[in-house]
Formats: sequence, structure tokens, C-alpha cells
Amino acid sequence: MRNWLLPEYIEDVLPRDAYRIEKIRRLVMDKLFVHGYQFVMPPLLEYVESLLAGSGSGMNLRMFKVVDQLSGRMMGLRADMTPQAARIDAHLLNTNGVTRLCYASSVVHTVPDEITRTREPFQVGAELYGHSGIESDLEIQRLLLECLSVSGIQSIHLDLGHIRVFRSLIYGSGIRPEFEMELYAALWAKDTSALRELVYTGLNDLDKTVREALLLLPELYGDETVLLRARKYLPNFPEIREALDQLEHVAKALEPYVDRIIFDLADLRGYHYHTGMVFAAYTQGSPVAIALGGRYDEIGKSFGRARPATGFSLDLKQLSRLTDINDYPRGILAPWKPQDDELAAMIKQLRIAGHIVVTELPGENSKEVARCDRNLVLRNGKWEICPVSG
Amino acid sequence: MRNWLLPEYIEDVLPRDAYRIEKIRRLVMDKLFVHGYQFVMPPLLEYVESLLAGSGSGMNLRMFKVVDQLSGRMMGLRADMTPQAARIDAHLLNTNGVTRLCYASSVVHTVPDEITRTREPFQVGAELYGHSGIESDLEIQRLLLECLSVSGIQSIHLDLGHIRVFRSLIYGSGIRPEFEMELYAALWAKDTSALRELVYTGLNDLDKTVREALLLLPELYGDETVLLRARKYLPNFPEIREALDQLEHVAKALEPYVDRIIFDLADLRGYHYHTGMVFAAYTQGSPVAIALGGRYDEIGKSFGRARPATGFSLDLKQLSRLTDINDYPRGILAPWKPQDDELAAMIKQLRIAGHIVVTELPGENSKEVARCDRNLVLRNGKWEICPVSG
Repeated sequence: MRNWLLPEYIEDVLPRDAYRIEKIRRLVMDKLFVHGYQFVMPPLLEYVESLLAGSGSGMNLRMFKVVDQLSGRMMGLRADMTPQAARIDAHLLNTNGVTRLCYASSVVHTVPDEITRTREPFQVGAELYGHSGIESDLEIQRLLLECLSVSGIQSIHLDLGHIRVFRSLIYGSGIRPEFEMELYAALWAKDTSALRELVYTGLNDLDKTVREALLLLPELYGDETVLLRARKYLPNFPEIREALDQLEHVAKALEPYVDRIIFDLADLRGYHYHTGMVFAAYTQGSPVAIALGGRYDEIGKSFGRARPATGFSLDLKQLSRLTDINDYPRGILAPWKPQDDELAAMIKQLRIAGHIVVTELPGENSKEVARCDRNLVLRNGKWEICPVSG
Repeated sequence: MRNWLLPEYIEDVLPRDAYRIEKIRRLVMDKLFVHGYQFVMPPLLEYVESLLAGSGSGMNLRMFKVVDQLSGRMMGLRADMTPQAARIDAHLLNTNGVTRLCYASSVVHTVPDEITRTREPFQVGAELYGHSGIESDLEIQRLLLECLSVSGIQSIHLDLGHIRVFRSLIYGSGIRPEFEMELYAALWAKDTSALRELVYTGLNDLDKTVREALLLLPELYGDETVLLRARKYLPNFPEIREALDQLEHVAKALEPYVDRIIFDLADLRGYHYHTGMVFAAYTQGSPVAIALGGRYDEIGKSFGRARPATGFSLDLKQLSRLTDINDYPRGILAPWKPQDDELAAMIKQLRIAGHIVVTELPGENSKEVARCDRNLVLRNGKWEICPVSG
């Protein structure tokens, strides 16, 4: 057994990448902070029930579990920080007004994500609680775009969807829960033949308008003409009208900040907990979304306080591989002269100014200090910075 | 079951504390960075064998374990990042010269630390590999003092010890390993009667000088006169002379930066892995050390590459409760006027300058925005910042 071997899809982040992640982490957190989002640090472990609150069915299988030796109860290693932030909003902060929270830390999954291939994403997110209007959806999406932009993501494609289009088709036609789940699965898999079978045979008492609407949903994917077609062919339910209005409003407001907006009315990601508008951001070089978000108004319920909520989260490790931020500062090598006060003062000043100064230790071979591209050299009685000759 | 309830000794860090921790985290990391310490991010989980490499016997019990579903092997949730950093130095970076690494993240323990009462410390540490001279011990200790100082810790007491004093007494007198462990336990517990019994009855063939030295060790605690007494009464072994010289050298160099230096020649903390000088930092208001460190030259061995090493680590959560850094910036409340370009431009500028600007959402009761102590108000056609009246 080689002790240095890591488990599959678990990685060390080495200095150059760690530096970039740390840099983006600070830029993003500062962005969240000046928008009034307050930083919270929920624990890595807590009771399984709390971590599963309001989350989808897949979460339980993605979560590592351990026995709490102090209580005998099961604790989970968080696989997502969203329920933790909701718990903090619902219980600990307990204000009636709007609360804005953000977080930035590791989450762990039992199995890797299919495409990003890691079991330890570094999740950064922002959540806005206590406001149900479209203005908070817009604030969250604008904030996401600012965070991506400050992270050095150049081109952004934004996908917009709205859970209430599908949901109001279901609720407006009295479809039973088991069929709702089958329809959801077929739409989510973009399996149009299964969908066709369901609406014709499984649900043969279905209203014609609703049936045609369900069959149309997978095609309602693309540019702004999607909204025109939706208005024309979907039933004129007030909920659907409102959803389409919201999509149009948000798209118009965000258009100047993104390269492309795609509407996807069959996007049912997080159908178990999302309740309104959902969105996903993409960029060149990544086959998967670099950030996900949406409205999930019932999240605080299992903590005793249902609150409107909308938010986004992203994986900073994934983002850091797509950014154009790629500097890694080199250092200045200082010789070992503990008695030289002038040298010590100069080193101190350089470090205060943010320069990396590495002091060579006695016996150390300075050729090894590969990160330094400059030397401190004594010239005419004065210490000067010179490029490393070589 | 109340879902918002957390397990014992597991806490949320709420905005005010999280802000302070984040602030100190950045100050400390920047300090480490300008000294040439490279940031690494080892994983939260890895194989148990790697995490136990070179660590003391208590580590196994402090570590949560889970089954890796991909390999069937046991993984541990890290309880300490030191072995992870050593693994990275030994295997991944694999340079021959000096390597300086630092890290900052959560570790988790199955049971709380007796005094700090948490199971999730936020561990920040620095490690210097590849140099066995006292100069690297000094560099690490100086760096620790700088980190404490930048964290707003005003008064620092430094405890210095040296594992080689006790160890050379043992090795110089052919004491068998089982007695070494009993002696260690008695000294570590400061149990002088057990110590007396051991050296008189258990080890009755012991050389008189060594016996008296072992009995004297618990008394060799205090100011610089400890070194004088040690030189006078401990056997004149070259290893002991060298250890005392090192203690004297480091104490002299660090004296200007600390309030008090205490020597403790019976300090055998980490005896299982420490090999040279050890140190602990204290401050007012804390009954326990706020930072620990020392030399542990064999750490990389189980990763296939034994390297000299010295380093320190501290718990940022603990530190943040002792700091005098205690500001929590208040925000500026901006009204909801999406059409007002001048207002939008002003908000943008304020945020770029680092101010927190919270935009009121329609329907939001601004009285609730408790964090804001200023308003943006339109006066004579110009947006101005005014204190919140009332």
C-alpha cells in the first residue's frame, strides 16, 4: 500500500492551483460582501435529518454518514451547503425581513459528479431569503454574473427555466402524484417517446390543451422566440403567464451582461425543491454548467419557518480551471545574514508591500529555490533587487 | 426531533464571527505567503493509513471513518493537516531543497478537545521541510509570532521545550522501550511520585546521574535560570548541550517579540513524532495554548521520503475569540429605483470602493435592514449618503 496514494476522485490542490482558487475565492467573497451578503460558516458535519431537509431524493445517497459518538445518532458530511444556510436563516437569525447570506467551503460526495469528476467540490453560494418577488431573482442572477465576471470568466451563456410552467400544467389538470413523477422523469431525460406514451395511454382522460402543452415542453428550448411560442401554444393559465412574464423581464435585464440567453421550459432540475425561476450559467471550455441556482420557497419549512428563498451556488475548483486569472507571483531570494539590520529592514518593507521574500537558510542550495526570480544583492553598500542570473 | 438542532460541540459560525475569522484568515495567510510559504489544499477525506502516518497514537481514536464506496477501503476525515502537508512535500512536490508549505481549513474530531470544546477547529499551519538546522526552527517561531501579532493578539507568552533532552537521557542509558513509555507518561502527567517509583524500583540498574536528571526534569520549568540549572545538573551529553544551546539561541532571538519566555524541559507533547525543539504560545484570556509547534524530522518516512521538518499550527476559531480585531462593517441602504442610472452608477462606485450597499427590494420593510447605518437619499437632484435617522 502506498501511503501517498489518494482515493479516486479525491485530489490535493497544489500551490499554483491553490493560489488561483484562493485569489478567486477572495474576489467572489468580496463581491458578495459589498452586496450585503453576510458570510456564515456552517459545520462540516451535522445530523442527517437537518442536512436532508428540503433536498432532493438523490442527496441521501450522495452523503457520507458517521455515528456521533456523543449521541449515538447519525451525522452526515455535508454534500450541499444550501440546507445549512436555510437552517441558519430559519432558526438562528430569525428576522422577518430580507436576509442575505453567503458561504464558501468544501462539500463532499460519496460518488463523483459524472462530468466534473470530483468528490470534493469547493462550494461558494449566495442565498436571499424573505422576498418572493422577481426582483430578488434578478438580484441573485445579477450577482452571479458579477461573481463570474470578477472570477475571470469571459463569455457567459445563461439558461433560464421556470418550474411553475410544468407544475401549473400538472396542478391545473388534476394529474395524480405518481404520474407527475413519471412525467417529470420523462421530461428531465428528454425522453419524448416515453412522454408521448404517458400522455396518450397513461393519462387518457387528460385535457387536450394540457396534453399538447406537455408534448410541446421539450421543444420550448432556444432563444427569445421560445417565449412567443409558449404564449401562443401553452394554455392561458395565470401562473404560466406570470412565469413567462418573469422570464421575459429577467432576460431583458440581463441581456447586456451575457453573451447569450437560452430559455428551457423543460428544465426541471431540482424539481423536488425548486418552486420558481431556475437558471444555469455556462462558459466556453466547460460541457457542464459552472453555476446553478433558482427559487426554492419552501426550504425553511422543516426548520419551522418556511421562507421565500432564491440563490445560486458554484464550484470554485471547477471555476478556477476556466478562468483567465493565471498569475503565480515569484519571489525574491534574500541571503542569510541575521546580523544585517539594513537587510532585515529591507526584507520587512518588501513584505509589507506584498512581495514574497524567501530567506535562504544556512546550508540551503539556493538553486533549489525555484520560485524566486530575483535576488537581494549588496551593491556599493546598498541592498538591491536584481534578476536571478542564469 | 428539532431539525435545527446541532450535535454537541458542533457550531455554526454566524456572520459577525465569520467575518472576523475570514479577516484574520486573510491576514495570516498573506503573512505566510510573503514569507514564501506556498498554500496547499489537501482533501477532507483520504485513506486512514495516510492520515495516521507519523502521528501519535491518539489520532486514530479522534478520527471519523467512512467506507469508500469506490474501493471498499476505509477513509478518514482528517483530524490534523500536518500529515497531509508532509505527504505533499514527500511525494508530490519532491524537491531536494527547502519546501515551505501552509494550509488553512477545517479539521474534525470525534470527541471535543477538553478545553476548547469544539469538534471542528479551523486549522491554519505552516511547515518548513528539508532543513535540520536551528535556523529553520527560528524562522518558524518568528513566523508564528508575526501571525499572532497580525491577528490582533497583544501579549504572547512562549513556552520552549526540547524533546532531545529526555530522549538522550533514555538512549544514553539503555532504558528499554516499555520503561521509556512509562517514564514519558509519568513526566507528561507531571506525576513525580510515579516518576520516583519508576527510577528507583523499576529501573534500579540506572546510572545515578541519569536517575537524578530524570527526577530533576519536572523542576526544569521557568525563566532563563532553568537553562543554567540544566547545564549544571544534567549529564554533560553532547546532545543535551546542543539542545540547551538551541533553546538559549532561540530565546535570545525571540525575546524582543514576546512578553515572556518559559522553558519547560519536561514538555513531551507529541513525543511520538517530535524530534527536536517544541514550542507553545499562550495569551491572556486563554487557559490553553493558542498555537503549537515543533520539529518532527521523520514525518515523511512513511511516504517514502524522510525529511527534516518543523512547523506550527493553530485554531483560527479559538484565535478569533481572543483577538482585539472586532469591527463589523455596517452597510448603506439604497432605495429600489431600477430606472435611475445615476443611482446605479453611485452604488457601483461605492461597492468598488469596498462599501457595503444593500438595495432595498420592493415591499421590503427597510426598518428590517438592521445592518445599515446610512441611507442613499436624493437631495437637490443628487444622491447623497446620510446617516439613518431615528
